[in-house]
Amino acid sequence: MLVEKIATRFSDTDGLGHINNTMLPIWFEGARDPIFKIFSPDLSLNTWQLILAKFDVEFHGELFYGQDIELRTCVSRIGSSSFDVYQEAWQAGRKCASGTAVHVHFDHNEKTSMALTEALKDTLLSHPFKKNAE
Amino acid sequence: MLVEKIATRFSDTDGLGHINNTMLPIWFEGARDPIFKIFSPDLSLNTWQLILAKFDVEFHGELFYGQDIELRTCVSRIGSSSFDVYQEAWQAGRKCASGTAVHVHFDHNEKTSMALTEALKDTLLSHPFKKNAE
Amino acid sequence: MLVEKIATRFSDTDGLGHINNTMLPIWFEGARDPIFKIFSPDLSLNTWQLILAKFDVEFHGELFYGQDIELRTCVSRIGSSSFDVYQEAWQAGRKCASGTAVHVHFDHNEKTSMALTEALKDTLLSHPFKKNAE
Amino acid sequence: MLVEKIATRFSDTDGLGHINNTMLPIWFEGARDPIFKIFSPDLSLNTWQLILAKFDVEFHGELFYGQDIELRTCVSRIGSSSFDVYQEAWQAGRKCASGTAVHVHFDHNEKTSMALTEALKDTLLSHPFKKNAE
Repeated sequence: MLVEKIATRFSDTDGLGHINNTMLPIWFEGARDPIFKIFSPDLSLNTWQLILAKFDVEFHGELFYGQDIELRTCVSRIGSSSFDVYQEAWQAGRKCASGTAVHVHFDHNEKTSMALTEALKDTLLSHPFKKNAE
Repeated sequence: MLVEKIATRFSDTDGLGHINNTMLPIWFEGARDPIFKIFSPDLSLNTWQLILAKFDVEFHGELFYGQDIELRTCVSRIGSSSFDVYQEAWQAGRKCASGTAVHVHFDHNEKTSMALTEALKDTLLSHPFKKNAE
Repeated sequence: MLVEKIATRFSDTDGLGHINNTMLPIWFEGARDPIFKIFSPDLSLNTWQLILAKFDVEFHGELFYGQDIELRTCVSRIGSSSFDVYQEAWQAGRKCASGTAVHVHFDHNEKTSMALTEALKDTLLSHPFKKNAE
Repeated sequence: MLVEKIATRFSDTDGLGHINNTMLPIWFEGARDPIFKIFSPDLSLNTWQLILAKFDVEFHGELFYGQDIELRTCVSRIGSSSFDVYQEAWQAGRKCASGTAVHVHFDHNEKTSMALTEALKDTLLSHPFKKNAE
C-alpha cells in the first residue's frame, strides 16, 4: 500500500484526550494525493476531474497525540466511471482506523460523470490494489 | 426529525467552490448534541459515556457557501450497547448529504462497552426514530 | 455591534477540555459574513473582492463546550484600500476572546489592491463602528 | 530556525483556490511541538503546563495546494512567566505567512500562571532564538 507518515497536532485532539474522529476524513483525503495526481498531475484545481460520492470511517482503536500516524492507501475497486480507495491509519503498530472513499470521474463544467478511459483504469491498477472485502 | 439550522462559512469551502466534504462529519457530530445530552445532560466531558465506532457520509448534491444548512437527525437503530444516528444535510430545499454514525455506550475509565439500560433505550426511542434502510 | 450566536461542538474541544484556540479564527471569519456581503451581496466566490492581510486573537478566558457563543463584530478602521474588523467571543456573560482582522479590497484577477470607493466607505461606516484602541 | 516540512491537502483550500487563512494557526501550533516538548517531553496532555495568551498571523503571499510547506520556528521572547514563538510559512522559496504566539507557563489545576524556572529559560534559550522586531 502507499504509505504517508504524518505528525499529530495538539489541535487534532478533543476533550476525551484522544484524536477527534473528524480528523480521519481530513487525513485520508490528504493521503489520496497520489491518486488525485493520476487525474491532475500537478494537483491543479482548475483541471480537477473527481468528485466524492461517499466515504466511511471505522474506528478500531483510539489514536493519540504525540506519536506519528502511518496512513496506508490502496485502490480497492475500479468501475466504469467511479473507483474506491481503501485506507488505514496506524499508530504505534496498531491499526486504529480504516475507511473507503468512492470517487467519481466528473466533469465539473458539465456537472456529469465521465467514463474512466482504459488508460486511467490501467494507471489506477498500477497502484497498490486490494479488492474490497465482501 | 430533530432540526438544527447552521450558517455556512467561507472557510468551509474548498478549491472547487463548494463546501468541502470534510465539513459533513463536523456538522453531523455537532447536530448530535441532543443525543449526547441523553448521556451527559450538561455535555460535561468528564462524564462522557459514548465512543464513535464508525460513520459514513453519502453525497447527493453539492453544498454551497451563502445559504443556511438544515441538519436533520434521528435515531435509526438501538442495539444492546450501541445505537445508530441517521442524519441529513439540506440546503435550498435539496437533500445534499446523508450519513449514519454508530455510537457505543462506553466506560472511558474501564475502556469497555456498557449495556444500554432500559431507561436509556426508552429515552432514545422518545426521540425521532427512523429505522435503518435495509 | 453585530451579534451572531453559535453552538459549540464536541469537535471544537481539545485535550485540555476547553475549546481549541484554532477555532477562533474560523468563528470570527464566519461572523464577518455581514461585512463580506457589502462586497459580495450573495457571497458569490466568483466576484470576491477581499483578501486577508493579517489577524490576531487574544484570549481572556477559557471557552467551553456546552454553552452557546456570542460573536460580536464591528468595523474598527477604514483606510484607503483596507479596513479592520474587531470581534469578540462571549460565553456565559464573559468576554473570552477578541481579535482584529485586516482586510484589503483586492482584485483577484489583477492580483492588486483596489481603493475603497466613497460608497463602500459609507456602507462600512453604516455598520457598527468602534475605533481601534491605541 | 527549527524546520518542519508538511504537505498541503485538498481540504486546506478555499473557494478562492488558495490555502484558507484558518490553516495557519493550525500549522503553526503543530510546528510548535519541539517547544511543547520542553514542558511535556512525551506531549502528555495530563501534565500540560502551557496556555495560549494570543497569536497573530500576517500574510505576505498566497499559499497553494500542491507544493510542500516549510514551517520555520524560533523562540522570540522569554519573560518571567511567558514567552513568544515566532514562525514563518514558506512555499516554493517565498515567505508567505508569519506570526507570533504568546504562551504562558500555566498550572491548569490552580488556573494560575507559573514563573519560568531558570532551567526552563535556559532550555528555551538553547533553541533557535530571534528577538521580536521592535
